[in-house]
Amino acid sequence: MFKIRTLVTALALLSSISIASAWETLPTSAPAPADNPTTAEKVVLGQMLYHDPRLSSTGTVSCASCHNTMLGGEDNRPNSMGVNGQTGGRSAPTVWNAAFNDVQFWDGRAPTLEAQAAGPVTNAIEMGMKSWDDVVARLKSIEGYQVAFEQAFGKDSISKDNATKAIAAYERTLITPNSPYDQYVSGDKSALTAQQVRGMNKAQELGCTGCHSGPAFNGPGMFHAFPIHSNPVYAAKYHFKNDKGLAEVTKKSEDEHLWKVPTLRNIALTAPYFHNGAVKTLDEAVLVMAKTQLDKDLSQDDVADIVAFLNGLTGEFPKQKMPVLPATPGKTFN
Amino acid sequence: MFKIRTLVTALALLSSISIASAWETLPTSAPAPADNPTTAEKVVLGQMLYHDPRLSSTGTVSCASCHNTMLGGEDNRPNSMGVNGQTGGRSAPTVWNAAFNDVQFWDGRAPTLEAQAAGPVTNAIEMGMKSWDDVVARLKSIEGYQVAFEQAFGKDSISKDNATKAIAAYERTLITPNSPYDQYVSGDKSALTAQQVRGMNKAQELGCTGCHSGPAFNGPGMFHAFPIHSNPVYAAKYHFKNDKGLAEVTKKSEDEHLWKVPTLRNIALTAPYFHNGAVKTLDEAVLVMAKTQLDKDLSQDDVADIVAFLNGLTGEFPKQKMPVLPATPGKTFN
Repeated sequence: MFKIRTLVTALALLSSISIASAWETLPTSAPAPADNPTTAEKVVLGQMLYHDPRLSSTGTVSCASCHNTMLGGEDNRPNSMGVNGQTGGRSAPTVWNAAFNDVQFWDGRAPTLEAQAAGPVTNAIEMGMKSWDDVVARLKSIEGYQVAFEQAFGKDSISKDNATKAIAAYERTLITPNSPYDQYVSGDKSALTAQQVRGMNKAQELGCTGCHSGPAFNGPGMFHAFPIHSNPVYAAKYHFKNDKGLAEVTKKSEDEHLWKVPTLRNIALTAPYFHNGAVKTLDEAVLVMAKTQLDKDLSQDDVADIVAFLNGLTGEFPKQKMPVLPATPGKTFN
Repeated sequence: MFKIRTLVTALALLSSISIASAWETLPTSAPAPADNPTTAEKVVLGQMLYHDPRLSSTGTVSCASCHNTMLGGEDNRPNSMGVNGQTGGRSAPTVWNAAFNDVQFWDGRAPTLEAQAAGPVTNAIEMGMKSWDDVVARLKSIEGYQVAFEQAFGKDSISKDNATKAIAAYERTLITPNSPYDQYVSGDKSALTAQQVRGMNKAQELGCTGCHSGPAFNGPGMFHAFPIHSNPVYAAKYHFKNDKGLAEVTKKSEDEHLWKVPTLRNIALTAPYFHNGAVKTLDEAVLVMAKTQLDKDLSQDDVADIVAFLNGLTGEFPKQKMPVLPATPGKTFN
């Protein structure tokens, strides 16, 4: 009995490894944690909160300001601009398909979308609210939010916990399936050009898929070191190592320069690149990655082919209604 | 024959005056200038441009940042915040029903929505673009805009003129009809409460409608002086006269403290109030207006009634699709 069970486990493991190494399409829905099942009411509320600049101290910055749902899910800036024009040291990751990340933030310090959503609101240079108590007090004073929270979570339910749950529930709907790549993998061999197919094969042969595989091209493995191979030209130009990644959070030397593996989905839409947004173009990003991670020098043809493939990872964006944010008649927070 | 024609004209004039002084509902469509008829293609393009932060130097500020179409058409701040956290001296007017203003900007310096749309983009503290040539160059480099302009205006049509025409065409669709007031005036006597009807009558008896009448409560007369009656308390507290209004543009002493009459439509949603956003609540704004413009001291009951009426001017917001902004694959402006 024990042996059979072991064999079954081994076979299942083998099967899952085999699946993981194949080309996979993006699911059209994202799994939700047991304590936050996705509901239509939460998604409606979460979309409002996500787009509401009144969640910032100045009333000018919403989640969408830096993770723009009308664009590639971020702001196309090296570093985002928070309240009062302040900037930090990292580039905003895309919100599209963030539901498929094992961890959130560049340094992976948040294990869930819910935990991530709590962070920027009270970050002094991002949304600048003094505390979540202040956020909750604001939300409680807006009648329309009282109603929307009640519909999503029950009576008198405005809280940090429920606000971040609603935002996360909304974010789980921000999925971009059916890219040319997905169509190709699903059997439509005309969905990618010959150059894109060459680039796809080169990405695998070179070893890009060692870290960027699976449906969202962001695993296996939650963290990887970057840059692995030191390169004096890139070091002088892009200063990748100024930021220690996970070690900035854990303060452990073994975590230095460990980063969440970012998705390659919609990567054509998210320039500039890397944790510090130092690289302006996707062409250069591909060159840099091959050199620093795989110690390989790519030809211009290789770069062109791989970038063509990466352009094939731009998916279909869900049609969204513009939210109408609830009012505070006759008064304001700012 | 001449006499009859004169009589007909006189009667028509009398009739139009009589209509103008009555309570009027908001039209559901706005007139467009002869050289910019509204088309679906222009509206689609205009909605994209209006929400595109890439029309600012930092890539962080769109028209919608200060004139938020998810809220009351502005930002609920005393002064808007432009690129790099800069602020100016005036409060953003609402974009909702701006199509019914005779002139645009607080000082009325733009005769049309088209002319208005050109301004903030190259204002150093608003959207910060160096020139419209730079804006046009950006737009021309975005393939999706090449297509959208072609659909709206024909081949190779990206220009300042067409960009502002598209934005204006979109803004002409931002109308909020069917407020409780409109329903009441259209015959549904239950649409306003008894208090709101009292407030409506008081607003007329006091003389508010001397400047705030017509469908959008923003006329007759394009400009009016504010404040008319000096009040030392308000002068010390709100500094209304620090800004000379139209005279800041014309440099003529007779234009000092002349302002466009702002619409009262959705005024409950646009706190804080006045050209400098110095007054935080609608209650106080009503008190101030009665004193400075009509030299009248209102009781708390008067204020409550009039504010109740003004709350009845909040209309129905059109259901909008969230635009998907065209990409610059693999590169960025910032």
